[in-house]
Amino acid sequence: MPTSPQEAVRRQNLGALLRYVHLRGATSRAELTARLGLNRSTIGALTADLATAGLVDEGAPRETGRAGRPSLVVRPRSSRVYGYALSIEVDRLRAARVGLGGAILDSRTAQRPPGTEPAGAIGTLAALVHDMHRHTPAAGVLVGCGVAVTGMVRQADGTVRIHPQAGPAGETAGAALGNALGAALGHDRPPLVGDLADVAALAEHTRGAAAGFDNVLYLHGDAGIGAGIIAGGRLVTGHGGYGGEVGHMVVNPDGRPCGCGSRGCWETEIGERALLRNVGRDGATGRDAVLAVVEAALRGEPVAQAAVRHVADWLGFGVANLVNLFNPEAVVFGGSLRELYLADATHVRARLLRMALPVCREHLRLRTPVLGDDAPLVGAAELAFERLLADPLETADPADREFSAPA
Amino acid sequence: MPTSPQEAVRRQNLGALLRYVHLRGATSRAELTARLGLNRSTIGALTADLATAGLVDEGAPRETGRAGRPSLVVRPRSSRVYGYALSIEVDRLRAARVGLGGAILDSRTAQRPPGTEPAGAIGTLAALVHDMHRHTPAAGVLVGCGVAVTGMVRQADGTVRIHPQAGPAGETAGAALGNALGAALGHDRPPLVGDLADVAALAEHTRGAAAGFDNVLYLHGDAGIGAGIIAGGRLVTGHGGYGGEVGHMVVNPDGRPCGCGSRGCWETEIGERALLRNVGRDGATGRDAVLAVVEAALRGEPVAQAAVRHVADWLGFGVANLVNLFNPEAVVFGGSLRELYLADATHVRARLLRMALPVCREHLRLRTPVLGDDAPLVGAAELAFERLLADPLETADPADREFSAPA
Repeated sequence: MPTSPQEAVRRQNLGALLRYVHLRGATSRAELTARLGLNRSTIGALTADLATAGLVDEGAPRETGRAGRPSLVVRPRSSRVYGYALSIEVDRLRAARVGLGGAILDSRTAQRPPGTEPAGAIGTLAALVHDMHRHTPAAGVLVGCGVAVTGMVRQADGTVRIHPQAGPAGETAGAALGNALGAALGHDRPPLVGDLADVAALAEHTRGAAAGFDNVLYLHGDAGIGAGIIAGGRLVTGHGGYGGEVGHMVVNPDGRPCGCGSRGCWETEIGERALLRNVGRDGATGRDAVLAVVEAALRGEPVAQAAVRHVADWLGFGVANLVNLFNPEAVVFGGSLRELYLADATHVRARLLRMALPVCREHLRLRTPVLGDDAPLVGAAELAFERLLADPLETADPADREFSAPA
Repeated sequence: MPTSPQEAVRRQNLGALLRYVHLRGATSRAELTARLGLNRSTIGALTADLATAGLVDEGAPRETGRAGRPSLVVRPRSSRVYGYALSIEVDRLRAARVGLGGAILDSRTAQRPPGTEPAGAIGTLAALVHDMHRHTPAAGVLVGCGVAVTGMVRQADGTVRIHPQAGPAGETAGAALGNALGAALGHDRPPLVGDLADVAALAEHTRGAAAGFDNVLYLHGDAGIGAGIIAGGRLVTGHGGYGGEVGHMVVNPDGRPCGCGSRGCWETEIGERALLRNVGRDGATGRDAVLAVVEAALRGEPVAQAAVRHVADWLGFGVANLVNLFNPEAVVFGGSLRELYLADATHVRARLLRMALPVCREHLRLRTPVLGDDAPLVGAAELAFERLLADPLETADPADREFSAPA
């Protein structure tokens, strides 16, 4: 607990400085002074505290091409301070060791058997992490773990309530995924669990296609359609953490029945199954099957072209509705929506122009993820770093470390 | 500018204490100590500062029925410290003098000629304020002015861009309503301007049907359908302040053309015009005409009943979509949607149950406004008080007052 206003302000400033170099990389003291609104001596003292804690170091900048003695830069100690980032995707499991600053230092991938519960992924993920840990330098400091899970996540306890394979009823008993993962990893504190689209949105907002924007829609296509929505710089989670279920926004009252019990959900028009059904491949699933249709459309096959155009039209339709609600600066098309958007962007834009109010779309950019398929992992790493950045010395102090190394 | 961390903390605490009594009314020092997490002597010093500035006073509580010497309570000086709250509604203009604490001390209403620009309301509103001002005690301190405007409002400058009467093109040149109103009122600082549904949402969230909830949809029906959306305790405004345009969410792709250029917008199914058209009163407009249909339906007239049922069904449809997006704790039906919801709540609920995901609606309450038609005025007053509550002594100090009394 901070014991005085001065100490509270100092801790806040330490967090602000560490967050700045975490997000922007190596930064000169002059820039830190200007950007954080603090004086030179304060920046010097804060940097010294963070360096003593092993969180940053100072060094010469990369070649600037300018003459004269270069000013030193403050850098996050990316190879020493790290978090584990995990993702439970529809058809695979991923684990990465991510350094402070956001670089993926190491990663592992495993298949996920179709139709399995998220809880079934725990053993595999723990094995991936333990394997990475054997290759981690002994001097490294683990500061946290974050998990991205496709499906529905409740914020308070990281419980996964619905995932795409849950079937029509949709609701599972709710295994406490975070707790179980924490136990399997041998961590004192369970990992933070986030919805995959939410954490991918966070990643693209932090250091991707939506950097610098405060109002962002990140749309993610896999077996379903998810969204991470950032409004006023903050994630829209809703009361229980179930916000952003754009896939179950009804766009076509006369449409097909949806697995959720409703009819004509956005997912039933632009989801993987809809696309594959429209090319006569009812039984097929997965990203590769979607990409095959997109490629066929690009080759000029009429049935595939019509199917892609159908998706593009309804994609623009739903985006227009969301733009009227959120007046965003950027919409980012992630997962399989990336390829579907790129395959017929003209149609998506045409529908959007027709349906979105001019004032709601006037500064809108349509983008694809800069981080590509790594967005969920990079976002999960942001969850892992959150505590450290909120109070650097508290978390980094080895005497008070909440994460033990996995056995 | 605060000159030290201690001073910054003190100002923050002054704001927190004043905001607490503004929202909760007379509060004992013991409760303030507990709720603000400060010690007794700090609460005493802060109260003394606020009392010296004329913002609060201390006195005996109302009769408690308990024996013993009652503890003193801290009260906002509602009759001394006030703001002006204005609303530009579809068919009327309102002005109120609202005391710190939220009580309406005085108010005036005027007709608004149909189809006029918001800018045309300035002279009338200024006259209403000046008339109230003549009846205001000389010792009163005016701390700000807020305006609620039906239509679309851009946040940065309070410019009104679209209003229901703007017709298909929708976009006006954008009169700087706030500046013009400030000039007409003789205020040094222009009033803060907010979208009517946004400020009504703020009012119901602050001291109405949605108090205590962080995720709220306030829906407002008049000539159009507007919404004030609160996510994570904060208003969703979008990039330019145009968020929440739920009336132009397309719910029925096969529906009628909408004034916005799209087709099948929510407004074309549940708006005033849709209801009146469905009972064969194409030419009629206004709240009274809507109420006449609702009353006819309650009397059992079949055509009116069918029209109200149509609205209820599509009302539930749109609310279900929004619930899946925002996972709110409360939906509040305001304006003419209040009566329409109450007239056939069974149908609204049935549709909602069928379409909203169980996890997204599991703690949902459907409510009507506690503040009724005063919600926009009470919300506009919150805009007026915002600066005072952010930094009480800066704003209340007569030597630094930014609002002069109207001439």
